[in-house]
Order: sequence, then structure tokens, then C-alpha cells
Amino acid sequence: MRAGRMVIRMDARPIAVFDSGLGGLTAVRELHRILPNESIVYFGDTGRIPYGTRSDETVIKYVRQDIRFLMTFDVKLIFIACGTASSIALEAVRSDAGVPLYGVVPATAAAAARASRNKKIGVTGTSATIRTGAYRRALKLIDPDIEVIETACPLFVPLVEAGRVSAGDVVIETVAREYLTPLKDAGVDTLILGCTHYPLISGVISACMGEGVTLIDSGREAAREIAGRLGQADMLSPGKKGETSYYVSDSVEAFTSLGGMFLRAGITGRVAKVDIEKY
Amino acid sequence: MRAGRMVIRMDARPIAVFDSGLGGLTAVRELHRILPNESIVYFGDTGRIPYGTRSDETVIKYVRQDIRFLMTFDVKLIFIACGTASSIALEAVRSDAGVPLYGVVPATAAAAARASRNKKIGVTGTSATIRTGAYRRALKLIDPDIEVIETACPLFVPLVEAGRVSAGDVVIETVAREYLTPLKDAGVDTLILGCTHYPLISGVISACMGEGVTLIDSGREAAREIAGRLGQADMLSPGKKGETSYYVSDSVEAFTSLGGMFLRAGITGRVAKVDIEKY
Repeated sequence: MRAGRMVIRMDARPIAVFDSGLGGLTAVRELHRILPNESIVYFGDTGRIPYGTRSDETVIKYVRQDIRFLMTFDVKLIFIACGTASSIALEAVRSDAGVPLYGVVPATAAAAARASRNKKIGVTGTSATIRTGAYRRALKLIDPDIEVIETACPLFVPLVEAGRVSAGDVVIETVAREYLTPLKDAGVDTLILGCTHYPLISGVISACMGEGVTLIDSGREAAREIAGRLGQADMLSPGKKGETSYYVSDSVEAFTSLGGMFLRAGITGRVAKVDIEKY
Repeated sequence: MRAGRMVIRMDARPIAVFDSGLGGLTAVRELHRILPNESIVYFGDTGRIPYGTRSDETVIKYVRQDIRFLMTFDVKLIFIACGTASSIALEAVRSDAGVPLYGVVPATAAAAARASRNKKIGVTGTSATIRTGAYRRALKLIDPDIEVIETACPLFVPLVEAGRVSAGDVVIETVAREYLTPLKDAGVDTLILGCTHYPLISGVISACMGEGVTLIDSGREAAREIAGRLGQADMLSPGKKGETSYYVSDSVEAFTSLGGMFLRAGITGRVAKVDIEKY
């Protein structure tokens, strides 16, 4: 009897990741860490950020254009790193993508459900993310007994972008306390950071929530989810180290200088500007 | 000798006003007050707000589209109420408009120069407005001896939009004090509110700056400038009360519900959505 021939199904095509701006780089950072062989095409819609304050109709239109642009690359999956876009548009645009499409919401909800012991889970996010109730639905789908307490935190993004991220800053601490006190009082033991900007103020958030509350970083959980899916489907990239290219809809310079804050490393790949409205 | 025949040159065509969002409604409010017979077409680019954090190239592109859209109406002048758009794009797009084009910056600078006694003038605005130095240039053109002290106030817009406008709010007061203390210490006697959102926190700003500092509201000054120009050119609208129609690039509902804060009155005219990317 001879040995069966092993079928090589590995897939060197890049992973596409997009976000309304730079926040999705927190997911790219995690992908670099856990899947160093994967090539990544990143799109940040910096010319139209923020998505979090816009109507559903506008967000869906923008996400369709983002996907059409990313499909011009031969990618093996598309990941929506933006909490707002994943919450509002994931189902509406699923058929637009000719490849598997994953959003940050389901992966993050699953991680939170695994982490919670008392089944009381808090959700933070932009106004649009919270308005959709996407995290609530995803959590209830996993376990209807989970109690979900949601709070929109519209000032977190501009405060992070203004660099107000440090403990001891009365502005971020006051705003965080106002947003988070109802979640703390409700006794949640797990808190979803439902926007890719929020891990940058995890210290401030953690101090507000107190010990014993697990923070769930949506970018990190999404990267783990992608790794798992690719592994299951035998679609991981073979061999050598992957390359990352970045596309933005506004200034390349601003992206390159600010991106390092999210990536926690310099941006080394190619960065180019794209006219997203043409897609 | 018989009496000369009077030539009627009055002009019933509407005035076009545009802004990156709702802030330009502060100029509309003033126009309603001082020129009640004028009809107005307002465009708020709510689908792409804010302009204040974007690159020059992107702002100019957006402003060209805004003007092309407004030129589809038979307007007699176009007014750029957005400080960022006026600072960055006014000269670049002047030839695009087939009618007189006015920006908020020159009118506001002229009013500040008239108000100042000690020739020390402070300028507040978005990061993009301050980066261009447009107010500095406009003031120096009027009087090279004017000392100009500029400060970017990037958190004012999101804080106003989050409703944090009241005296006693530690967040807006802390941020305002940080931004304004250098201007106060420099001894300015006049302060330009170089963004149409800022009049909504004039109480907080005034308390920081102290008595004796005159605040210059860019929306109000721009409305006065338009009234003066139309009067000089005998292009004021004849007779009956004007009508205002509003166009936005995102949700009509959000505009209608939030617009009243800037207009200090309910929005009564027609509000419609426009796909600005087609222009």
C-alpha cells in the first residue's frame, strides 16, 4: 500500500482588510503577529472617515465601493475591521464580494461570550455601531441568556485622535467615566471595545471598569478568527514572509505619520492614494 | 427737463451657501435676519464632514463638487461658509464658479481688523484652517502691523456636536482653557471664531478670554458682508419674503433634527438628499 498523495491547498493570495480610517491597523498588527506569512492589502477610507456618525444608507454605499476596490486585487478574503461598517453593512453587502467576507462583530461577540462568566457583557462603540444593535444580536444568537448593556461613546474617537489617551488627563477620564459608569454599575464582567480606536485607551477604560472586568479588543479577536478560518480551510499562505500594501482615500503623508500609533511599528509597505469614489 | 428713468437691477435669484455640514446654518440664520427677502439654497456636505482634518487636495476636490452642484441652481452668488473650505480652496476654485464667490475668511478678517484697538488678534479654527494661515494672510493684507496669534482647536467641533457646550462642563472648559490660554497671555483684544461651530460655545470661550476681548462670529460677519456686496451691486432681492431650500449628502432626518441648534429655529424649508459624488 502506497502513501496517499497530499493535496496542497495553501493559498498565497493576500488578505484584504478595510476600515474607515487608521483604526483597522490594530487588526493588521495582530495579523502580522500571528500570521507573519500572509500578505495584506489594507484600505483606510481616510477621505470619508468617520463612518460612525453617518446614516445606514451612506455607510452601505461606502462599504460597497470599498469592496469593489479591494476586489480589483486577487484577494482570498475580505475583512471589515470597522465596527460601524461591520454592524451596518455586513449582511447587505455579503453578495457583493466574490470571496468570503468577515466582519469584526461576529468574531468579537464570540470571544466576549467565551470570556464572560456571569453572562453580563458590556458593549462600547460609535453611535452608529450601538444604534444598529449588531453586537446585541450577535451575542443573543450565541446565548439568549446573555445580558447585554450597550453604550455609545462618540467622543472616544476624536479624543484618541487628539492624543488624549493617558491616565491623569481629566478630559478623557471624565468622558470615560460618564460613558462607562452605567456598565460598571450593571456589573458586567466583560467589555467589548467595539471600535478599533478604543484599544489605545484601554488603560483609561480598565481603570474606570475596575479589576475583574475583561476587555475584548475587537481587532485582536478578528485577527484570531481569520487565522482560524484560514487554517480550517487550508488556505494559509505558504512559506515566506508576507508583504503589506496600504491604500488610503486622503493624504498618504498623514497616514504614514499617524499609522504607526495604531500599528505600534513604522509603516514599511507601499502606501498609495486611491480615488474611492470611482469604484 | 424730464426725470430720468430708473433702471431696476434687483435680482431675485437665490444666494447659495455651503458648508461641510451644519455649521454654515449660523450664516443662514444671520442672512434670514438681515436679508429676509433673499432666497437661499444651502448645501451641507454631511456625507463627507469634516473637511477640517483632510488634505488640501481632498478639500479642493470636494469644494469643486459642491460648487458644480450649486451652479445647477440659478444662483446669483456662492458663499463658502466653511472656514476650512474658504481657507484652502477659495482661490483655487474661484474660476469654477460662474458667479461671484465669497469665502468666510476675508469678511471675518475685515471685521476683526475693524474691532481691534491694540492690533493683537487671535484666530481659532480647525487644524486645516490654521495650517493654511489664511486668516493670518488676510489680516496682514489689511494691516501689516497687526499681530496674529493662531491656535488650532480640533476638539471643539466634536465637543459641540456631542452637546458639551455649557459653562461648568469640565471637559469643554479644560479643552478651551488649554487652547485659549496662549491667546489670552499674548494680550489679544479680538478673537476670531474661525469655524461656524464655535459660536455655540461663545459663552465658554468668552469666560476663558475674560472681559474686554471681542469675539468675531464668522457666520455673522459673512452675512453682513454679503448684504453689503449685494446692496452695492444693486442685486438685492425685490419684494416678498425669500424661501430657503436645504440639500445634504447624508441623512435628511439627522439634518432636520440637528439643524435647529445652529439655526436657532426649526428648519421649515425643503430638505433633500443629493449624491454629491456625481458632480
